[in-house]
Amino acid sequence: MRNVCIVVGSRANYSSIKSVMRAVQQHPDLNLQTIAGASALLDRFGAVVDTVIADGFEIDARVHMIIEGENPTTMAKSTGLGLLELPGVIEQLNPDVVVTVGDRFETMATAIAAAYMNIPLAHTMGGEVSGTIDENIRHAITKLSHIHFPASKDAATRILRMGENPATVHTTGCPRIDLVAEIASENHRLPEKAWLEYEGVGGQISLDEPFLLVSQHPVTTEYGDGERQIAETLMALQELKMPTIMLWPNVDAGSEDIARGMRKFRERFEHGYIRFYKNFSVDTYVRLMKNCACKIGNSSAAIREGAFLGVPAVNVGTRQIGRERGINVIDVDYDRGKIIAAIQQQVAHGHYPSEPIYGDGHAGERIADILATAEFNINKRMTY
Amino acid sequence: MRNVCIVVGSRANYSSIKSVMRAVQQHPDLNLQTIAGASALLDRFGAVVDTVIADGFEIDARVHMIIEGENPTTMAKSTGLGLLELPGVIEQLNPDVVVTVGDRFETMATAIAAAYMNIPLAHTMGGEVSGTIDENIRHAITKLSHIHFPASKDAATRILRMGENPATVHTTGCPRIDLVAEIASENHRLPEKAWLEYEGVGGQISLDEPFLLVSQHPVTTEYGDGERQIAETLMALQELKMPTIMLWPNVDAGSEDIARGMRKFRERFEHGYIRFYKNFSVDTYVRLMKNCACKIGNSSAAIREGAFLGVPAVNVGTRQIGRERGINVIDVDYDRGKIIAAIQQQVAHGHYPSEPIYGDGHAGERIADILATAEFNINKRMTY
Amino acid sequence: MRNVCIVVGSRANYSSIKSVMRAVQQHPDLNLQTIAGASALLDRFGAVVDTVIADGFEIDARVHMIIEGENPTTMAKSTGLGLLELPGVIEQLNPDVVVTVGDRFETMATAIAAAYMNIPLAHTMGGEVSGTIDENIRHAITKLSHIHFPASKDAATRILRMGENPATVHTTGCPRIDLVAEIASENHRLPEKAWLEYEGVGGQISLDEPFLLVSQHPVTTEYGDGERQIAETLMALQELKMPTIMLWPNVDAGSEDIARGMRKFRERFEHGYIRFYKNFSVDTYVRLMKNCACKIGNSSAAIREGAFLGVPAVNVGTRQIGRERGINVIDVDYDRGKIIAAIQQQVAHGHYPSEPIYGDGHAGERIADILATAEFNINKRMTY
Amino acid sequence: MRNVCIVVGSRANYSSIKSVMRAVQQHPDLNLQTIAGASALLDRFGAVVDTVIADGFEIDARVHMIIEGENPTTMAKSTGLGLLELPGVIEQLNPDVVVTVGDRFETMATAIAAAYMNIPLAHTMGGEVSGTIDENIRHAITKLSHIHFPASKDAATRILRMGENPATVHTTGCPRIDLVAEIASENHRLPEKAWLEYEGVGGQISLDEPFLLVSQHPVTTEYGDGERQIAETLMALQELKMPTIMLWPNVDAGSEDIARGMRKFRERFEHGYIRFYKNFSVDTYVRLMKNCACKIGNSSAAIREGAFLGVPAVNVGTRQIGRERGINVIDVDYDRGKIIAAIQQQVAHGHYPSEPIYGDGHAGERIADILATAEFNINKRMTY
Repeated sequence: MRNVCIVVGSRANYSSIKSVMRAVQQHPDLNLQTIAGASALLDRFGAVVDTVIADGFEIDARVHMIIEGENPTTMAKSTGLGLLELPGVIEQLNPDVVVTVGDRFETMATAIAAAYMNIPLAHTMGGEVSGTIDENIRHAITKLSHIHFPASKDAATRILRMGENPATVHTTGCPRIDLVAEIASENHRLPEKAWLEYEGVGGQISLDEPFLLVSQHPVTTEYGDGERQIAETLMALQELKMPTIMLWPNVDAGSEDIARGMRKFRERFEHGYIRFYKNFSVDTYVRLMKNCACKIGNSSAAIREGAFLGVPAVNVGTRQIGRERGINVIDVDYDRGKIIAAIQQQVAHGHYPSEPIYGDGHAGERIADILATAEFNINKRMTY
Repeated sequence: MRNVCIVVGSRANYSSIKSVMRAVQQHPDLNLQTIAGASALLDRFGAVVDTVIADGFEIDARVHMIIEGENPTTMAKSTGLGLLELPGVIEQLNPDVVVTVGDRFETMATAIAAAYMNIPLAHTMGGEVSGTIDENIRHAITKLSHIHFPASKDAATRILRMGENPATVHTTGCPRIDLVAEIASENHRLPEKAWLEYEGVGGQISLDEPFLLVSQHPVTTEYGDGERQIAETLMALQELKMPTIMLWPNVDAGSEDIARGMRKFRERFEHGYIRFYKNFSVDTYVRLMKNCACKIGNSSAAIREGAFLGVPAVNVGTRQIGRERGINVIDVDYDRGKIIAAIQQQVAHGHYPSEPIYGDGHAGERIADILATAEFNINKRMTY
Repeated sequence: MRNVCIVVGSRANYSSIKSVMRAVQQHPDLNLQTIAGASALLDRFGAVVDTVIADGFEIDARVHMIIEGENPTTMAKSTGLGLLELPGVIEQLNPDVVVTVGDRFETMATAIAAAYMNIPLAHTMGGEVSGTIDENIRHAITKLSHIHFPASKDAATRILRMGENPATVHTTGCPRIDLVAEIASENHRLPEKAWLEYEGVGGQISLDEPFLLVSQHPVTTEYGDGERQIAETLMALQELKMPTIMLWPNVDAGSEDIARGMRKFRERFEHGYIRFYKNFSVDTYVRLMKNCACKIGNSSAAIREGAFLGVPAVNVGTRQIGRERGINVIDVDYDRGKIIAAIQQQVAHGHYPSEPIYGDGHAGERIADILATAEFNINKRMTY
Repeated sequence: MRNVCIVVGSRANYSSIKSVMRAVQQHPDLNLQTIAGASALLDRFGAVVDTVIADGFEIDARVHMIIEGENPTTMAKSTGLGLLELPGVIEQLNPDVVVTVGDRFETMATAIAAAYMNIPLAHTMGGEVSGTIDENIRHAITKLSHIHFPASKDAATRILRMGENPATVHTTGCPRIDLVAEIASENHRLPEKAWLEYEGVGGQISLDEPFLLVSQHPVTTEYGDGERQIAETLMALQELKMPTIMLWPNVDAGSEDIARGMRKFRERFEHGYIRFYKNFSVDTYVRLMKNCACKIGNSSAAIREGAFLGVPAVNVGTRQIGRERGINVIDVDYDRGKIIAAIQQQVAHGHYPSEPIYGDGHAGERIADILATAEFNINKRMTY
């Protein structure tokens, strides 16, 4: 019986690992240990930890690690705070392997803790390229990891070229696509009108007409420019005035800039056609993705889940540079005119065929099986 | 005028960067900022910070970051503690570039701080391979760095294969060899007898006869085995009973195991032929290296400086696996018999010719010149 | 020349110490050192640090120390975070005396840092009694302090009874009253209409009619009850529908409960008669206090500054229990009916005569003079 | 069933609370929760945690919190580190009451954690006066505590005068005397000769002749003077050359000064009549106390346990100023001449009659009974 310890640090993080957690929980040779930390604990981000519990997972430890400020200094310090507390928690849980997801600061804290504690580290979503500080963090975590579960072939190739042992690199697809596939196959309908009215704040909109879905995050390497960046997108929305569902940004450095831009916009313009949300359950998010006329912003969902679902998407700015993408995405600059044109083109086009670039819906089971049987070698060596 | 911020975290660290500090200090377009932290601040490790000041450098900040315990958990937590404090200090100093050395936990804390704070990070001693947790840490730091100063061609090649931009990889040689070259050319003599008697504790030994120099550190990935490992070496010394100078281990996880092994040995055996030291100035160390009959243990000095100086060396165990080495090194297992045989062979052979594998003595100036003129690109991309 | 180091940790904190900072800055024998930390650095609380700078003070260091979560666990941890960073900063500044204000968690962190570092600690606002965890923290800080500047005679008596040396207890009045006196004497007018419209969000209200001023904070020992507590006050306002200026709560444990109650109220009820503010400059606050028809909530301002200004006030709940108060205050329970009745009574009554219970407007100069000349005894002893 | 959480932070700490732990463990209405932290975890201080486990207690959590450096800055920071980790651990354990002992930095960290987390705090050894920074810390902890278990009447009186509610102050005697009484009644003999030889380092001494027992710690408010202070004591020992058992100092700021003084002494003088020890089990310590010709130094044991056992004692310097003491103690300054004279006088006098100033041997049971039944009031108020 192997103990598999998974750290859930944010809402995005949770939907990227939930199918692995489920598969580990159900695997006869594995025991799941769950640590909830970072923004997963915060009301302000929708208390993801409550969803985790409602989904039937037990929380073994909670680690508050976000220092207020949302600037580069506090992001670095928050990593340090995580790294002060995670070792004690991990020591107590005594796992056989720690699984860490992607490229966030709590991911980095987890990776370093495991590295120094001589505990095998498994990493999902490694080897991908994007356009932010996350890029460097992600590759650094690859170099600290002992077993890799890249989502796509391109990502696997990059991990191997970085000198990782081929026996430790498993192209499983992305666990997030597992959820997307499940939800999309079970339920094609939109969320209920009652939900729309109860959750969120802002205009009372209808999803019976073609609607837009917007989610734009700070670009950490362009810190300080967020208010201008979001303004371009908002002014494009203002021109189109289609029913719009818009999310608040995540907690990276610069988040407050985006949020301030959104608050100012709300105070200065009539915006009855937009409804604002703090976050969605994955379930709701997939249903909205599947049914929207166009997905706008810079979240990876448009590119990754979007490829699987064939969602018409407009990707704004540099945050997703270099990430493999399907035919469903049009890339534009921070420029209201170009954003408007691209949205109009995508709304006119409608849905695209599905492309399984980032997974086929069975990543979780594959990963659990490998975790149950792989030999972990803590003394890894480069292949060159 | 660019601000170049250098973090000095240990005695090894300092001798690996001192010639760069000197060259930055003397460069007309650069301003040196020095942070002293980790074991560089501790009496127990010889208060390296006092040496730094005596050498004419000003300390801009001191960061205590070592949590007692010397086990894997506290090593991880110490990284976190450094990461909690370094960002505030770096924010205050506002450097144009941060220089970090090698692969220690304070190096990792510095790298992550710079990465999240969008400050260009320069890294020395990257791309090398060795046999410990340091290996993974070192390569992860390469992936977080924006400019690289590898010591050897092999190391540079590895950095490039990991996907770093060739324009950012400069094979300058190791700055530590600069010091070694300078000291070796100036002063061939041994330390004074008075020094031998005043410093250190243990036997009153003579360096007029052929003598041994021993320095053996914990292997972090073999945590818990240190007491046995050092015992093999000590029993070999006990067989030979040549005049011996021996260092206490560094502060990595497992240090206490090695130290305990040494203390037990001292209590159980007559050991008047060994003199124990907490640490040396680089100056003393090079003079001892240059004149010893054989260097024994697992420090990288035997391999790196040893190649330049042609010192007969016996490398024990796995800590230096994979590191490029010259003809001066014989590798043996943790086995008293093999250690004895190898020492006897090296003492009989005498000095080897110099090999400049890790530098020619001018790395510091090269690095300062590049730091003064290089364009730093904070948004780095992989080459594949 | 003595270095006097003052830590500013919040907006309330700043207005409680500003006149001391001014007097220290202007004193020929004193040198002011300012550390900005905790909520004083956060946009969400109006970035008090910018006001401090605009007022002509230089910031010597910034210490981010608030861990997100706003619950009892994160409040304790935030104290720890402050205590990890303040010692390094204080060591660097090397003050002759540290001044700390009141009873907040950053105050406690400052006090413990000074205590262990053998630096004389001066404390303002000690010896008062109130109704929260702050009570215990405040008295504990008194026991760690070497020189005391209580605001009132009652407070001084309590400090002496706790065993402090009479030579170290100086009843100077509260420095916050200095500001209040200055502002009130200079400028009786209300803020400009333009200000009202530019700042804050919510209804466009007029201050030409009698208006209410509301500020209600979480009660840390009643954690979890905040949403209900604020609901009673909000429902009372809803009944009266007078023009109202309302502040968001401070950052104590439970803050999010109060804020959530306020957000829900805004979504469910028409509230065009209320305008919401994140914070005020002291200047604005005093002008609003002086001119409002009634001050409502549980902030200490209604009791302390209120006594000096003669403001009709309704104090809700337990937060201020035991605090000395003048004739201007009516105390009520968390009960909308009682709150309504008390407000109506106070609006009908109008202003009260001034009572100098907490100071006469010259505390800052007195404190600076004492700091310049007092002999500090680090080895304090109890008087019994 | 109430959960009683006890934090064990050092060897002194453990022997001061062990009888309470035992009584809680055996009480039908109480459940013991044990946190081991600070120097209790460190090999360098004899890994007290192993003794705790050997005594039949289960460790619920381990908190590494000591930052290396042993100076005032790191002592303050270590408190912060404890305060960052204890809240998470305490939240997980969810105790009904937390018990904290005395006046060390981990005691302060525990007290603040409990205070902010609204958990009732019980305090032992409060109300006593001594001569160090511990004095202020101890009284500050009294002001944060909800229930008090002073050792002596004097101490109880002081707690009451500080404004604590008489219903919460219980003069139970000191739990450390419970152990002393038990050991002293069971076993009058000295430790075996084999023990003397196996443990410790230094001279091979005989305890058949009259011997001295020495334990001298740094005085935190006299930081920097430790090397001189210990030198006076050591030179007195050198004059007398009686068989001597000497302990290394505890981990307070200044510890390294004392240790350095001891190391220098060992290098410069023949010292075959002294044997040095890192620490003792309580059992050994009591047996040595009971049989020594004189106890020398500045530990509280000479005064507290010494009174019960009637041990002739010489108390050196200021560390114990103000502490209630019996007829067995002679106080002297840091002065080798005076120390010699006092030791000679005590050796000549021999044992004193027992005085139960600090307890009669039944404190643990009393405290457990009170913890099982007391009503805790988290909203405490001063009595004046």
